Amino acid sequence: MENRLPALYTLGIVGAGQIARMTQQAALKLGITPRLLAENIDDSAALAAPDARFAHPDALSSFAELCDVVTFEHERIDIGLLQALESGGHNIRPGTKTLRCASDKLHQRRMLSMKGYQVPAFAEAKGPDDIIDFAKTHSYPLALKSVRSSTDSQHAVWIVHSEEEALKVMAEHSRVEMMVEQYQEILQELVVIVARRPGGNKRTYPVAQVVNEGGLCRKIQIPADIGPHIAKEARDVSQQIADDLSAVGVISVELFLTAGGLVVNEIAARPHNAGHFTIEGCATSQFENHVRAILDYPLGPTDMIFESATTLNVIGERGCEDPANHIQDALAIEGAHIHLYGKMPAAGSKLGHVTALGQNHEQTDEVAARAEASLLGKRYLKGERN
Amino acid sequence: MENRLPALYTLGIVGAGQIARMTQQAALKLGITPRLLAENIDDSAALAAPDARFAHPDALSSFAELCDVVTFEHERIDIGLLQALESGGHNIRPGTKTLRCASDKLHQRRMLSMKGYQVPAFAEAKGPDDIIDFAKTHSYPLALKSVRSSTDSQHAVWIVHSEEEALKVMAEHSRVEMMVEQYQEILQELVVIVARRPGGNKRTYPVAQVVNEGGLCRKIQIPADIGPHIAKEARDVSQQIADDLSAVGVISVELFLTAGGLVVNEIAARPHNAGHFTIEGCATSQFENHVRAILDYPLGPTDMIFESATTLNVIGERGCEDPANHIQDALAIEGAHIHLYGKMPAAGSKLGHVTALGQNHEQTDEVAARAEASLLGKRYLKGERN
Repeated sequence: MENRLPALYTLGIVGAGQIARMTQQAALKLGITPRLLAENIDDSAALAAPDARFAHPDALSSFAELCDVVTFEHERIDIGLLQALESGGHNIRPGTKTLRCASDKLHQRRMLSMKGYQVPAFAEAKGPDDIIDFAKTHSYPLALKSVRSSTDSQHAVWIVHSEEEALKVMAEHSRVEMMVEQYQEILQELVVIVARRPGGNKRTYPVAQVVNEGGLCRKIQIPADIGPHIAKEARDVSQQIADDLSAVGVISVELFLTAGGLVVNEIAARPHNAGHFTIEGCATSQFENHVRAILDYPLGPTDMIFESATTLNVIGERGCEDPANHIQDALAIEGAHIHLYGKMPAAGSKLGHVTALGQNHEQTDEVAARAEASLLGKRYLKGERN
Repeated sequence: MENRLPALYTLGIVGAGQIARMTQQAALKLGITPRLLAENIDDSAALAAPDARFAHPDALSSFAELCDVVTFEHERIDIGLLQALESGGHNIRPGTKTLRCASDKLHQRRMLSMKGYQVPAFAEAKGPDDIIDFAKTHSYPLALKSVRSSTDSQHAVWIVHSEEEALKVMAEHSRVEMMVEQYQEILQELVVIVARRPGGNKRTYPVAQVVNEGGLCRKIQIPADIGPHIAKEARDVSQQIADDLSAVGVISVELFLTAGGLVVNEIAARPHNAGHFTIEGCATSQFENHVRAILDYPLGPTDMIFESATTLNVIGERGCEDPANHIQDALAIEGAHIHLYGKMPAAGSKLGHVTALGQNHEQTDEVAARAEASLLGKRYLKGERN
């Protein structure tokens, strides 16, 4: 992985959601035409792709043959296949070690715990007995989680308040590999995005603060409203994790700020929803730095060029209209950066995002909220929901 | 042209150079998958296009049938064909009136002169007699120009210092429609980019100052080093021209600052090479505002978000290497925004551009020059050429 790549590459991107769409755009800016492996012709990135191939991700081997470097939008990839490709000399980035860690949350917890990172107490939950055992030493509520990462619109965490509830979830999802965790009283949810080159050079973005709604990341404020010591700790921890994983590319570290300090929640081995503000808010977007990192190019500056940024995800609601129908109203909101992903509207699906940049969160929250409400065809009422 | 378009469109782009490539990216950001009419499979925009059709621009009618709105990267389009399409109800933008004016420099001069704009003295030059007549009242040097716009790498202006030279140029280019003009002693060359919606709403970018080399636009500094009165006059004149032409989309007005004041040199009916700084330097790029304007969407803010911007075009030289081979060195220049267009290197061809943003021209000039030198595989020597 440390070898210098040839000057002109074929970059392959596996997965075709909005993360792939924006990564593709970043590559094109640098004069690189990426090759996309998509599943459906109307996937967000496929709609924007100059060179899309359509196949199941398991057809990765033949795709990898056509590429000098392969990167991934999601972690739902067979790890054995990745290992075989890597052993065969393919440039798989961020690398099998990182992808395995991102795709298997139990493995991830074990690795983090073993390395001494602060993580919630956890255990594998193969069946009801494991839950009952865990509950003996850890009081309810507990968090049940699927071990494997799911698509962005699925809920893979269940907070349960009693043994009865826990066993009900286990029964309803008997085919899902489960783990159980101590429920965390979260003061704040933070995301740190780190770009890392094969040789270990890194750039880290300012800490983002995430507000979830219904299990989906809805609002992101940058910088996070935390003191400089916690911000430094969050960035240090995230950089250390990137090194521990020998990650190549962008990795995103989700952290909980609790009364007991920072706890590592989850690692994603790709650009993150919480980093969309970097497109207009930083000199180098997370997508461009991902492309630079996986090609072993020098990384670009990650400082914010505004004091405050707010991003709101435009999330489809049941029976909602296509936000494209309302784009004229949203574009009329001065200072909002509007991004639509070209997706068919569906409940729970991220259809686009808006970013506002400015002096302070009050100002950027309001601009972003007005733009988001416009896209969803709603009237914006100050203070109502954002 | 004033009618409101339906909410979801098929946007067609005719021409496939870097202007089309960047316009396409701006459309994709807004969730719109544009359809491209390209001539060659390795055209810059075709390499980045999700939906490219290949045909000569004269095959415009069948392409227009597939689009709700058609826009153009260049002006080398048959005007009769455009008129027929417009009469047939097609949304041709910026519109036949504007495109005719942009494509026929003699017509453009006549229109501008009739409307009272300051333009150089000019005359049609059907043959040597017209030059000889013109020289009776206007002393040499004179400028001979081709009436029709040419591709971006061709020189279409000849400065001649004597009748002998003039007649030589006329003889060598006997098949080119020519006009003759009073040569202008130029203090500064300026470009103003105006985005205009069908109803007349406009946004105007800060005045850019252009430095040409060998007939090609090489360096652009923003804001131009001119006083506020001249800047206001340049913007006012350009906005007035946009209105006079009923332009829809982005038009670019090239102005000469002479000892006698501002003179209108040329109008381009599209985003301009001098406006690439708007991608990172303004809240809304010229490409996004072009897309917004032609779709009759609200325009975005055009203010600069930095004090100073310098853009350098990366222009191919005889036998030059592909700048992509040197991208690692260029990306190492902190603060330079690198854009490559994916083109095969050729002498005189614009292969990419770099933009530096900062506090003052001295700083941004140096960063841009370092990055450009890197891309061309040269050592940067301060003060040598930029």
